[in-house]
Amino acid sequence: MEENKVGVWLIGALGSVSATVITGALAIGKGLISSKGMITSTDAFSNLGLVDVARLRFGGCDVRKGSILEAVRQGARESRAFDPELVGLIEEDVQRIQPYIQKGTNRNCGEIINTISDPACKEDAYLIETIETIRNSIRFFKQGNGVNRVVVVNLASTEPLLKFHYCHGDLDDFETALKENDVDAIRASTLYAYAALKEGCAFINFTPSNGALIPAIIQLADKQGLPIMGNDGKTGETLIKSALAPMFSCRDLKVMSWEGFNILGNRDGQVLNHPENRETKIRSKDQTLTKVLGYSPHSKVGINYVPSLGDQKTAWDFIHFKGFLGATMSLQFIWQGYDSILAAPLVLDLVRLAELAMRRGEKGVMPHLASFFKSPIGVSEYRLYEQFQMLLSYADHVRKDREKMRIVN
Amino acid sequence: MEENKVGVWLIGALGSVSATVITGALAIGKGLISSKGMITSTDAFSNLGLVDVARLRFGGCDVRKGSILEAVRQGARESRAFDPELVGLIEEDVQRIQPYIQKGTNRNCGEIINTISDPACKEDAYLIETIETIRNSIRFFKQGNGVNRVVVVNLASTEPLLKFHYCHGDLDDFETALKENDVDAIRASTLYAYAALKEGCAFINFTPSNGALIPAIIQLADKQGLPIMGNDGKTGETLIKSALAPMFSCRDLKVMSWEGFNILGNRDGQVLNHPENRETKIRSKDQTLTKVLGYSPHSKVGINYVPSLGDQKTAWDFIHFKGFLGATMSLQFIWQGYDSILAAPLVLDLVRLAELAMRRGEKGVMPHLASFFKSPIGVSEYRLYEQFQMLLSYADHVRKDREKMRIVN
Amino acid sequence: MEENKVGVWLIGALGSVSATVITGALAIGKGLISSKGMITSTDAFSNLGLVDVARLRFGGCDVRKGSILEAVRQGARESRAFDPELVGLIEEDVQRIQPYIQKGTNRNCGEIINTISDPACKEDAYLIETIETIRNSIRFFKQGNGVNRVVVVNLASTEPLLKFHYCHGDLDDFETALKENDVDAIRASTLYAYAALKEGCAFINFTPSNGALIPAIIQLADKQGLPIMGNDGKTGETLIKSALAPMFSCRDLKVMSWEGFNILGNRDGQVLNHPENRETKIRSKDQTLTKVLGYSPHSKVGINYVPSLGDQKTAWDFIHFKGFLGATMSLQFIWQGYDSILAAPLVLDLVRLAELAMRRGEKGVMPHLASFFKSPIGVSEYRLYEQFQMLLSYADHVRKDREKMRIVN
Amino acid sequence: MEENKVGVWLIGALGSVSATVITGALAIGKGLISSKGMITSTDAFSNLGLVDVARLRFGGCDVRKGSILEAVRQGARESRAFDPELVGLIEEDVQRIQPYIQKGTNRNCGEIINTISDPACKEDAYLIETIETIRNSIRFFKQGNGVNRVVVVNLASTEPLLKFHYCHGDLDDFETALKENDVDAIRASTLYAYAALKEGCAFINFTPSNGALIPAIIQLADKQGLPIMGNDGKTGETLIKSALAPMFSCRDLKVMSWEGFNILGNRDGQVLNHPENRETKIRSKDQTLTKVLGYSPHSKVGINYVPSLGDQKTAWDFIHFKGFLGATMSLQFIWQGYDSILAAPLVLDLVRLAELAMRRGEKGVMPHLASFFKSPIGVSEYRLYEQFQMLLSYADHVRKDREKMRIVN
Repeated sequence: MEENKVGVWLIGALGSVSATVITGALAIGKGLISSKGMITSTDAFSNLGLVDVARLRFGGCDVRKGSILEAVRQGARESRAFDPELVGLIEEDVQRIQPYIQKGTNRNCGEIINTISDPACKEDAYLIETIETIRNSIRFFKQGNGVNRVVVVNLASTEPLLKFHYCHGDLDDFETALKENDVDAIRASTLYAYAALKEGCAFINFTPSNGALIPAIIQLADKQGLPIMGNDGKTGETLIKSALAPMFSCRDLKVMSWEGFNILGNRDGQVLNHPENRETKIRSKDQTLTKVLGYSPHSKVGINYVPSLGDQKTAWDFIHFKGFLGATMSLQFIWQGYDSILAAPLVLDLVRLAELAMRRGEKGVMPHLASFFKSPIGVSEYRLYEQFQMLLSYADHVRKDREKMRIVN
Repeated sequence: MEENKVGVWLIGALGSVSATVITGALAIGKGLISSKGMITSTDAFSNLGLVDVARLRFGGCDVRKGSILEAVRQGARESRAFDPELVGLIEEDVQRIQPYIQKGTNRNCGEIINTISDPACKEDAYLIETIETIRNSIRFFKQGNGVNRVVVVNLASTEPLLKFHYCHGDLDDFETALKENDVDAIRASTLYAYAALKEGCAFINFTPSNGALIPAIIQLADKQGLPIMGNDGKTGETLIKSALAPMFSCRDLKVMSWEGFNILGNRDGQVLNHPENRETKIRSKDQTLTKVLGYSPHSKVGINYVPSLGDQKTAWDFIHFKGFLGATMSLQFIWQGYDSILAAPLVLDLVRLAELAMRRGEKGVMPHLASFFKSPIGVSEYRLYEQFQMLLSYADHVRKDREKMRIVN
Repeated sequence: MEENKVGVWLIGALGSVSATVITGALAIGKGLISSKGMITSTDAFSNLGLVDVARLRFGGCDVRKGSILEAVRQGARESRAFDPELVGLIEEDVQRIQPYIQKGTNRNCGEIINTISDPACKEDAYLIETIETIRNSIRFFKQGNGVNRVVVVNLASTEPLLKFHYCHGDLDDFETALKENDVDAIRASTLYAYAALKEGCAFINFTPSNGALIPAIIQLADKQGLPIMGNDGKTGETLIKSALAPMFSCRDLKVMSWEGFNILGNRDGQVLNHPENRETKIRSKDQTLTKVLGYSPHSKVGINYVPSLGDQKTAWDFIHFKGFLGATMSLQFIWQGYDSILAAPLVLDLVRLAELAMRRGEKGVMPHLASFFKSPIGVSEYRLYEQFQMLLSYADHVRKDREKMRIVN
Repeated sequence: MEENKVGVWLIGALGSVSATVITGALAIGKGLISSKGMITSTDAFSNLGLVDVARLRFGGCDVRKGSILEAVRQGARESRAFDPELVGLIEEDVQRIQPYIQKGTNRNCGEIINTISDPACKEDAYLIETIETIRNSIRFFKQGNGVNRVVVVNLASTEPLLKFHYCHGDLDDFETALKENDVDAIRASTLYAYAALKEGCAFINFTPSNGALIPAIIQLADKQGLPIMGNDGKTGETLIKSALAPMFSCRDLKVMSWEGFNILGNRDGQVLNHPENRETKIRSKDQTLTKVLGYSPHSKVGINYVPSLGDQKTAWDFIHFKGFLGATMSLQFIWQGYDSILAAPLVLDLVRLAELAMRRGEKGVMPHLASFFKSPIGVSEYRLYEQFQMLLSYADHVRKDREKMRIVN
């Protein structure tokens, strides 16, 4: 059974994270590069029966028009992060994905996302029609690639913060709102999550968009017996925060201020330059310190769009702390990473772990994936190493289950 | 019984760490400042029966001549790290310590330490005479302060690296060497440790000097039933390394290079400016990455003496790492802390925990104190949070023991 | 004649820059500290007949209530930038200033300045009445201190950006607007400048507030035969920009982006945390790159209020540039300075140079003072060293004039 | 006359700076890239009659064996600093250079350079024979390329510091030493410079090696009527120092310490990792601060070889300074640049300016080129902008000369 192929359906399929996911997975599948950067390929995750990267098949949707091959080429050309000759070696495989990249929805996604969208994506349809369109795209992808199990991953641009509406709290109310076409209460991310689960797919929200995993969607996942997880892939500044902040507690040092300043130049940066979209992102980053330290230092996160940087995200963090005898000291760090390069292996890890959970019949929120997210839903542990321990425990547990099976058989 | 006073005998008593330990302890004891920075004063260590800071009594020795009050005043004046008015409020108590600051030994400590030593400390005596002198100083301190239990803490300048000599490996051989006055095989730190244990004191090596806790000394601690621990207090760059390096493993990022550059201007910096002493320090820092990562990235630690910085240590670390698709990225950090301010609360924590161990009859190496040291002897765990977990477990264990006692009584 | 005392009347007299100006001037006057940091006390400015710092007398006004001695003490206590014992030695002199610190005006200064103002400063008076009040305060100061020549320096918090109104362009129109009490077109800074010039004082706008030196005020200075200069003292990030940016031109390196991020915690920071006030500041910083480079790179300056930093301003600048073969490279800098400590000696330098200009009968804008300002009015040269050369030339010119006089006499 | 081709003979022709010089010049010559980064191609240097980059012809020598095409390819592949497709477009032209890359000499260059040398370069020949070999190589290059005027540029690895020997001070003594084969007094760089001048070439020492431009060589240049200049191209940390250090003087801020730490991973880094070679480099960097500030702050420059960085040099500088009221503050900068990319355009600028000087009959040291060098011989001005002004003045002077000629004709 494990020899089957697994589908990966990417929302925002023409974005730079998707392009990097596809480039990397194809290159690993062909043995052109190592799987460095994917934690699920390390020894700690061996013998779990995770799907081989070579057996992943890709599709998805985007609100922009464009060619996936061009996105892959542009990713290589602009970032100069990896050997550009790689692209030539996977071109044919990339082109085979093109038919499965379909039109997405930008329903209620705010001004800036509208601006960068293909006009054809402007949503006038009823919500239930849009859902049907998405479901059709997923079905077409499944059939075309002969895959049964699909993991849908949201990699679209950050939406504006969605305010709580009573219909978010309950699946029945939510479905009523869908039928009544209550467009203000629902965003694209919600529609995608709903459609994915209805279509029997696992769902991962790698973005900060808080519309995706509202309580009604979590209820639906439980009902459908499907695993879900989010929000917001932890790739840079917040990753370091979650590794470093506990250090201050271990030394009883009081963090007075933790100021962060991020500059980046890709489309993510362009969208986050818009205040309403930035707000969603910053909220997502905000909780880590409070959760880790047990109190809230002064903390403000700035994000600036600096086109010349492209995918190369740079973050400066200034941490002002107080110690013995009331002395004040500081720690600063400067993080210079390729945004998509850091995100892509996490996406592949999450796909493999979500697919495993599907096969194991696990449903609802996957707390053991907390270490991958800035705002892990249903998890109060924000310290990186404790989160990672949760993942290792899960792996042990799966391994023991497999051992038992083997013995039984 | 717990109401008794506890002695703290500091080697290098006129140095800036000692001055800060004394300033802080007296100020805490008088309720002038909070115990911020001392992890043993947080809730996680309540109900362990740790000695109150107010009940600590201080003495020690130094190879330099000078007044402890002047050292305390200078510490405040030069660092500007804390409110200088504090010193006025503890002056009398500081002066009461002066009689118990005695002449130290600089036996075999290398050129630079000789240079800064009082000529009277130049050692021509037989090794066994020097040991007797140290023991006398400790006894004088005990009697004068009415303390039974004493923790001896080595805060002296870093000695040159001591090469292994067969006499280090066995207590009998070592004692033979002492009798035969084999001065080349033995350094001041070894003599202090030997004298302290013979005098029934716990011993903490807060310095990198590798002469202090040689196997023969560890055997002696076991024989005497006394607890010991070292080496090298983890206060700055290495502290961050041990917190941050595991992050790269959690993301399967390969650390290619981790370069560190430290500048500082206090006496510690002056001594470390000397290549043979620096070597000892750098060796001590070296192991962390290899132990945490499981492999050895290119790593070089530079230490420069920059007088204008005084006690304000600044470290720049550049971490070059490789991720998905072979992309190279970097993380840099800049640490700006007061060396003595960071070290002093650890010394007080260690004293309290060592004294507790004495009372509990624990002997030999104390692995649960690993998180306090750059090179924890007898411990292979170098990750900060795992080390800290060891300390929390110990605290739980002690708490349960006390609970049992209470039930029994 | 040169033995006379000179008055310095500070707007925002209870702020931290004023407190530092007064502390420094009194301490220099008493010979307690060197004049380090004052360029006018270096050899390059000898034999110009500049007034001795010891002969400066201080007064001013503020919208907050409070004691100047308390401001001086707080400055010392909070910044820990200098030896706090200094304050004790100048206390009496500071107290002698108190009667000459009078109530200021916050006319049209925006919400945040209103919030921190003493309610008694809330302006309901006619504009001409407010001007009369200011003039009275200056006269009272002159009489009480027996000074003829007074330099008025604006050190008040940054006002919101003042939009151009036709009355700003012409002195007659402006005076009509005053009489007609056209309160919307006029801010506190304009009233101060007007009053100062009418009272025969030189005027320096050390703040970014663009209301102070509108064309009508410049006309008034010409008419009154009095020197004026501004805007916005160049003390930190912009100082470095004006020194560093020309380097890129010398190497034909193209600056693509220059992002700056400032954090600070004093009252200046608190006011700049308010968007309308920040706007004024950022505008003032904006021009340097364009003027120096001859083109406008992407550049955004962020300012965050971080209370724990107090007077210690920290700026991180990231410069992304392109060189040979289209390669992109970067330079980052981190500036950590005490805001008031950097500003205060410039204020004293400006006072001495403005007073010299008064005595020499120079009137209107003083372009030779460009190097002191972020936005020097009437000057298109923004490169620091060229600006400094302008100052050195002026000094040579004065020296030659004095030489001629001596020969004539 | 100006239509003639000009020869560029590179010592260290297979190194990464040479490879980048050749790549850039050929690509500019073919119109594939702009001349960005070459100051001589900006408007300020128009109408000087500088040789077109397209008319430069390249040759040289190296102590390593290898193909220039491979060096060019490797430069592109390893640095990822520029579009690697460029190499394909210039391959044929690069290959045409190969016959003119001849065997160099490593006479007296120290252990590490010997290690990386081709054994065939081990020098047993008489000094005068080696000189003859070099001269033959240059003649062969001239004939093969039909060039009359050649500029020889030393781009070889840094040699160990050469101690002064009496024969360096006088040309006659030097030539006697050559004849007497006094090998200890003479290094490869001296031989190259001597041979170049004897062969009628201009000579540029772009390296810190102090053997190249000893007084005897300068005398020879004068005698031969040929221009020379050096030492040590100013491309990174020192460039910034010479731009930034004057700022502290403009504000009367006292630089107490200026610590620099450089990490780099190319062959230059490998050679500089060797203490005796590093010494030469550090000496060359050392003078800037003293010359610019007029006093010597504490300053130590560290250089570490970090292979993973390749050509990407990173420098961290920490500047500790004192200002008003004795307050101490700091400025740090982090420079991240491609070593060869920064050096190459300067080499081309220097070649063009040296060739112009040759044609104009200028002989000996060229002080107007000071801004290009860390240690400009015969120049005491170390401030970047003043040095650059010297270059602009020279350009004006040349322009006027040409104007006169035109009028005369």
